Amino acid sequence: MVTSRWTAAPAQAPPSRRRGAVLERAILEAALEQLGTVGWNGLTMEGVAAGAQTGKAAVYRRWPSKVDLVVDALQAGLPDLTRAPDLGGVREDLLEVCRRVRDAMFSPQGIALRSVLHECDARQAERFNQVIRGRVVEPTLRLLREVVHRGIERGEVRPDAANSYVFDAVPAMMMYRAKVCGSEWSDLDLQEMIDQMMVPLLCVHVGRPA
Amino acid sequence: MVTSRWTAAPAQAPPSRRRGAVLERAILEAALEQLGTVGWNGLTMEGVAAGAQTGKAAVYRRWPSKVDLVVDALQAGLPDLTRAPDLGGVREDLLEVCRRVRDAMFSPQGIALRSVLHECDARQAERFNQVIRGRVVEPTLRLLREVVHRGIERGEVRPDAANSYVFDAVPAMMMYRAKVCGSEWSDLDLQEMIDQMMVPLLCVHVGRPA
Repeated sequence: MVTSRWTAAPAQAPPSRRRGAVLERAILEAALEQLGTVGWNGLTMEGVAAGAQTGKAAVYRRWPSKVDLVVDALQAGLPDLTRAPDLGGVREDLLEVCRRVRDAMFSPQGIALRSVLHECDARQAERFNQVIRGRVVEPTLRLLREVVHRGIERGEVRPDAANSYVFDAVPAMMMYRAKVCGSEWSDLDLQEMIDQMMVPLLCVHVGRPA
Repeated sequence: MVTSRWTAAPAQAPPSRRRGAVLERAILEAALEQLGTVGWNGLTMEGVAAGAQTGKAAVYRRWPSKVDLVVDALQAGLPDLTRAPDLGGVREDLLEVCRRVRDAMFSPQGIALRSVLHECDARQAERFNQVIRGRVVEPTLRLLREVVHRGIERGEVRPDAANSYVFDAVPAMMMYRAKVCGSEWSDLDLQEMIDQMMVPLLCVHVGRPA
């Protein structure tokens, strides 16, 4: 069997030649890395390509714009908020949901999301706000609904507490105190919020103010 | 008595010659007008001076920078949130506080504040966030505290409801739904928030979830 240098060449391709999911992940990681070092305004498709040790064309082939690339880079690593905790009581379940939301807010992706929002223009901000709504706020509301409905079934929670203002109270307070007070939501802060706001709001009542 | 053309001249000065508070108000109004038409990035000290029919020096004499000028322009017209309502019941008092907060949020100054925050850089944003905290959030919390404490004195509100999470619940929800859901807080929205979140949160309880 005769092999020329030319037909043998593909087998000798450099080991760094990556394709598909592997290359994609390297590019997304490089984008997140760039975001952390040079920020949204400093990030370029060329810089990301260099960071991922690939060519600019490989980046543009997958993501037509910087916004598309960064949206995917931020979404890829955001902690998962899909499975509701089931610890036997509504207070513990709420606390666990809040811990997970706090961990998502203060993950590298969550921190990068907020700093991008400070730098980008209003049209781009809409894309990043969609990520916050779709990947943090809405999953959080689904977890809270499940936990509250389970509390109602157990007789712990008054049935009319299952309304949108009660569900929104947790993300609203977490966003507000992070933004206005610079809170980083320690475990103790989360406990205080649950005990001083959510438990009184959810429990059975005798009387209402006039 | 002899008067020359020269000694009489001051009395004939053009009526548009304004000083002190009058000129200051004209400059602040011109700044707000500019903000509404060309936005934070388009606003210049020259443009504001032209709008107020005065010279650039008259503007710089009072405000050393664009940020100082715009902060004052926004603060000057923000609705006042100092006197707590006293309508005889905590529900009505809370509703009236919320209506006033909503009116401040959606005043021309409140709307301009939010759009400036989208355009300016992080250091400038801190100055505008101070205006929001000092002129909207903190006065709102003072009103809510007064209204809740009066409810406790009347026996309408449980005494341990006077905590910071309960007070923050209103500004947190109003900020969150304006930002995340685009809510403009109609009177009906405000009523629902009070009836579904604040009234259950404030009223007397029999039991708590386990």
